[in-house]
Amino acid sequence: MRFSVTILGCNSALPTSERNPTAQVLNVSERFFLVDCGEGTQMQLRKNKIRFTRISHVFISHLHGDHCFGLPGLLSTLGLLGRTADLHIYGPSDTEKVFGPILAFFCRDMKYKVCFHSVDTDKSELVYEDKRVEVFSIPLTHRIPACGYLFREKEAERHIIRESLDFYNIPVKWIPLIKKGLDYVSEDGTVIPNSVLTKPSAKARSYAFCSDTKYSEAIIPVIKDVDLLYHEATFLSDNEGLADMTFHSTARQAAEIAKKAGVKKLILGHYSTRYKNTDLFRKEAAEVFQESYLAEDGMTFDIPNSGRDSEF
Amino acid sequence: MRFSVTILGCNSALPTSERNPTAQVLNVSERFFLVDCGEGTQMQLRKNKIRFTRISHVFISHLHGDHCFGLPGLLSTLGLLGRTADLHIYGPSDTEKVFGPILAFFCRDMKYKVCFHSVDTDKSELVYEDKRVEVFSIPLTHRIPACGYLFREKEAERHIIRESLDFYNIPVKWIPLIKKGLDYVSEDGTVIPNSVLTKPSAKARSYAFCSDTKYSEAIIPVIKDVDLLYHEATFLSDNEGLADMTFHSTARQAAEIAKKAGVKKLILGHYSTRYKNTDLFRKEAAEVFQESYLAEDGMTFDIPNSGRDSEF
Repeated sequence: MRFSVTILGCNSALPTSERNPTAQVLNVSERFFLVDCGEGTQMQLRKNKIRFTRISHVFISHLHGDHCFGLPGLLSTLGLLGRTADLHIYGPSDTEKVFGPILAFFCRDMKYKVCFHSVDTDKSELVYEDKRVEVFSIPLTHRIPACGYLFREKEAERHIIRESLDFYNIPVKWIPLIKKGLDYVSEDGTVIPNSVLTKPSAKARSYAFCSDTKYSEAIIPVIKDVDLLYHEATFLSDNEGLADMTFHSTARQAAEIAKKAGVKKLILGHYSTRYKNTDLFRKEAAEVFQESYLAEDGMTFDIPNSGRDSEF
Repeated sequence: MRFSVTILGCNSALPTSERNPTAQVLNVSERFFLVDCGEGTQMQLRKNKIRFTRISHVFISHLHGDHCFGLPGLLSTLGLLGRTADLHIYGPSDTEKVFGPILAFFCRDMKYKVCFHSVDTDKSELVYEDKRVEVFSIPLTHRIPACGYLFREKEAERHIIRESLDFYNIPVKWIPLIKKGLDYVSEDGTVIPNSVLTKPSAKARSYAFCSDTKYSEAIIPVIKDVDLLYHEATFLSDNEGLADMTFHSTARQAAEIAKKAGVKKLILGHYSTRYKNTDLFRKEAAEVFQESYLAEDGMTFDIPNSGRDSEF
């Protein structure tokens, strides 16, 4: 089962001819969660052959245009494609105030409903869950209310070992309990330990998206030990003062957060257009945190099902 | 001096991975007039290396998202680039009502002024002029108020023949009058005909943009004899009924307008994504009007200075 992030856009406010403004999709077993929706997101979804019908949840980090100006076009297109299923948009409290009137004007005849969910950007809380995944907000420190999002797979049930169940003649009605980790107790009181009957499921995977934000250790407890962290790196350390002033981060600061939070891998993005050579971002981060990678539009970062220690 | 149209986007409402929604720039001597501004226009401007600072006038045909959703991103980017010069936006009366609040929310700190100009979409009128060019609206027939735009170079002054002026000892103060076409009359009453002293200037060039619209012969008097006509062709004749119902045109209808208006060349665009082979549009149009061409993103159509009969 897939758990992967595709970068649709990774530039900062000024898009270039190669890099779009911020947008990503998280693929959880072929259901797609859109994270931010900069201008051009719908074209990027097409380029990356992501089926629009598989998107039902959009998470907006903050209301700067480079993170949300793709919403009206995407919502219109979903309407033209004949969508009828509800679409849920999570974002700071003004999200509906800003985009509601645009929808009312441009998308009058749409056959589907857009449900806005206001996210409190001041604390981490569960904003969405289904049977596979939970999504928590991550309070960020930016010039306007902003939050990241933590996607965490739910712990799956243990895998039964068919041969052991047959060997011990386990009744079928016991299987759901054994999957949950219970030992089997037969009618004569014999106990078969769960570890004989099941194998552990794959570890639950997790992804944290943190953009835009200045360096803030307050997020560390929320993103602790995630498999994959996207942390903005608008500047290099040569512009640390500017990063601070504009409430952005440097590559080194992103790496420090990754290291302190004990994450497995770090993706950098949201590069300022002032830098022509983005490899400098990777180098600067890798000095602090070895497992640092650069986001590029169209790139997919996979977290394999086998667990947290696998390569992607 | 350049007079050319670059296609930034030429698809209909649903953009594809190769074709962006509608936007074009008309280059009049390195001043750029933006016509429509679909999502992704700012990225297309960058790809086509068009300098943002050279754009001061934007003409919006109608308020369907695929013709204007690129405005917020472009306006934000102009602000981030430090623009201070006014930007003028021409469009149907609701344009300011729709985009004003978005600007107010997202572009609070911009150092330049956006001036909205309401265009009456029911009649053709002069909406803009400067020393080189006049822009007229073209009433179109669509589901909502819509107009095209006719760009017409002003007639340039006649070119003086330096040798003739020297030969006849024409005083310098007479030159402006001679450029305007007057004969020279010397103090002793001798008349030197203007045709001996000047050559005609290059013919004034013209471009008409007509999208979106159903077939309407009412536009013919407005676009009569233009050098270059862009006319939408959303469908082929196999879907003429659908074209009529949705207030769009077929390639054949676009060609009929071109023929009846006596234009020199026709560009087709705004193709429905249902057609995979756009060459069918050219073929269908060429049966009626030989000089029919297909718009593609990134293509530039030049009208040379030498006049209306030159190739591009």
